[in-house]
Amino acid sequence: MSDARFGLDRIARLATPLSLDGGASLASVEIAYETYGELSPAKDNAILVCHALTGDQHVASNHPRTGKPGWWTRMVGPGKPIDTDRYLVICTNVLGSCMGSTGPASLRPDGCPYGMSFPVITIRDMVRAQAMLLDHLGIPTLAAVVGGSMGGMQALSWAATYPERVRAAVVIASTARHSAQNIAFHEVGRQAIMADPKWRGGDYYGTGDPPTAGLAVARMAAHITYLSEAGLTEKFGRKLQAREVKTFGFDADFQVESYLRHQGLTFTDRFDANSYLYITRALDYFDLAEEHGGLLANAFRGSKTRFCLVSFDTDWLYPTAESRTIVHALNAAGAAASFVELHSPYGHDAFLLESPELNRVVDGFLRTNGHD
Amino acid sequence: MSDARFGLDRIARLATPLSLDGGASLASVEIAYETYGELSPAKDNAILVCHALTGDQHVASNHPRTGKPGWWTRMVGPGKPIDTDRYLVICTNVLGSCMGSTGPASLRPDGCPYGMSFPVITIRDMVRAQAMLLDHLGIPTLAAVVGGSMGGMQALSWAATYPERVRAAVVIASTARHSAQNIAFHEVGRQAIMADPKWRGGDYYGTGDPPTAGLAVARMAAHITYLSEAGLTEKFGRKLQAREVKTFGFDADFQVESYLRHQGLTFTDRFDANSYLYITRALDYFDLAEEHGGLLANAFRGSKTRFCLVSFDTDWLYPTAESRTIVHALNAAGAAASFVELHSPYGHDAFLLESPELNRVVDGFLRTNGHD
Repeated sequence: MSDARFGLDRIARLATPLSLDGGASLASVEIAYETYGELSPAKDNAILVCHALTGDQHVASNHPRTGKPGWWTRMVGPGKPIDTDRYLVICTNVLGSCMGSTGPASLRPDGCPYGMSFPVITIRDMVRAQAMLLDHLGIPTLAAVVGGSMGGMQALSWAATYPERVRAAVVIASTARHSAQNIAFHEVGRQAIMADPKWRGGDYYGTGDPPTAGLAVARMAAHITYLSEAGLTEKFGRKLQAREVKTFGFDADFQVESYLRHQGLTFTDRFDANSYLYITRALDYFDLAEEHGGLLANAFRGSKTRFCLVSFDTDWLYPTAESRTIVHALNAAGAAASFVELHSPYGHDAFLLESPELNRVVDGFLRTNGHD
Repeated sequence: MSDARFGLDRIARLATPLSLDGGASLASVEIAYETYGELSPAKDNAILVCHALTGDQHVASNHPRTGKPGWWTRMVGPGKPIDTDRYLVICTNVLGSCMGSTGPASLRPDGCPYGMSFPVITIRDMVRAQAMLLDHLGIPTLAAVVGGSMGGMQALSWAATYPERVRAAVVIASTARHSAQNIAFHEVGRQAIMADPKWRGGDYYGTGDPPTAGLAVARMAAHITYLSEAGLTEKFGRKLQAREVKTFGFDADFQVESYLRHQGLTFTDRFDANSYLYITRALDYFDLAEEHGGLLANAFRGSKTRFCLVSFDTDWLYPTAESRTIVHALNAAGAAASFVELHSPYGHDAFLLESPELNRVVDGFLRTNGHD
């Protein structure tokens, strides 16, 4: 594949302005993406993989900043369930993020960073940008769109917005709308960022001194919701960190404290605080039923897309009940849907971790995609 | 009762220094407390009510700063389950807090506020201070010690530390030890406070500008854990705050955001950030089994105290399983224990809210206390 549009570390500038749900229009949008595998002559073997809140386009290649392997190499690669020997796999950095796609850290036409003048975006806006990227790549339809967590919301939004372009959707550990508790946790994170004086109303790009303390606290709070109580107990319990006895001080006495602090700190090396604000807002705004007259089934009425829903039994961020709600709506809409709840001790994070069952489910579903 | 030791708004200075679990000794400790009702001639009708993390001694009287009614007037008062016509009810502000008892905002012997030079304290240290207060009041034994959440931990610690002084213990929505998830949430709150530049290493008392932003974020994160997911959905769902449509901005669009911000803000009017650090630390350190050779039953071996355990089915902060662990230990120790899980949609907060069942359980248990 010698076409410069395909490969690792690509950035495309969208040909036309992007019309946003909020009413604004965003010109000169750039979308960073990677592709793996080759497009078939019939251009019918593309799979779009969508990342979660703090993910990126490096689904199966090393992360340029951390050097770590791609975030879903368990799932994407030669011979893997999303088989790059058979499919052209595309992964984009979502609109509003900070790994190369246009977001609040990008420069406005006047040469200044957007900061908080960046328009509030939605999951559907992210999906619209991806659709325009597919146009740019000359890909009319997707064999499948696949994602976990916020990636699953994009998959749902794809199927609802461009039903004729999506033959199958795999929605893992996700939801059709953010609950009050989901919104509450995100609001804590946003307030933590905004309370950091270094945030400066979002105008910190020139300072070289971003609001890392607030962003770290936001990440810590969110991180707890990604893990199960049982998983935390199994991994850490009340074990002390590199000491025999409690110090009767405020150091990280407990391993779980040390772990959380580390999660917060390392996150600030790779993520932009304003992007965190905008993407959490997009998540909180997500309510697929609301976009379709208040009835979720309306989002899928007459859809020919085949759906595969997967939840994890210890996921309390987007619990199984949320997937069931989607399945009921798909059934009511007459759409083809399969659903399985998998067991895992790891809570919401399970979709990113070793899970042979998840691999089997995705592999099986894609193999019966009518394409093989 | 004309004795100046009894009544509302009292402060006692402990006669001798308080020896702490951390090894330090605290001189001139003051404990703020209130009493309701009268001590019987036999001095055997006292009930100690213990408050939760951010509670205070005003269990059945108006809060002097907020003007609001006492935090447990549903439970404590004339004719109430904890009947002030029959019992002398005592409620103390815990050591380390900020409503009159000695804590980090108090002055050291050198005239400066303790700040972070205040020693780290434990639940048992709080209980020791309460026992010394009882000595001061001339009360040898308690008809009962009663508390919810951190108050329940004090009740457990009382029974384990002074078994001969406690005839009955009522432990509501509590635990014998803080889990990894409990510690994690508290660590987020502490990091939020410490990340606030106005915290100044705890040395903010002279500035007139305390770390309210960090403290508000800490409170917001904790507050989510006090409510059930179902309760949040019922109360707020995705309802918008005083508007018809989403604003596509970062104002509090959703009622749950507005509610949480309000919770955070009002909290900073009445609570000291350093006290929040110290009391959450005491909670995280709490592990009653660890204090007794690693076996919880050892804490209650040979105890003549009668125990009443209550949990709420939607409490995910200290879920029913935690109460069951305590009951199993009490059974193994041969102690008298009754246990009931109550239904409530309100999560951990249920013990502070209208709950006729809780009132009935506490009333019934105290009436069969051998005292009537």
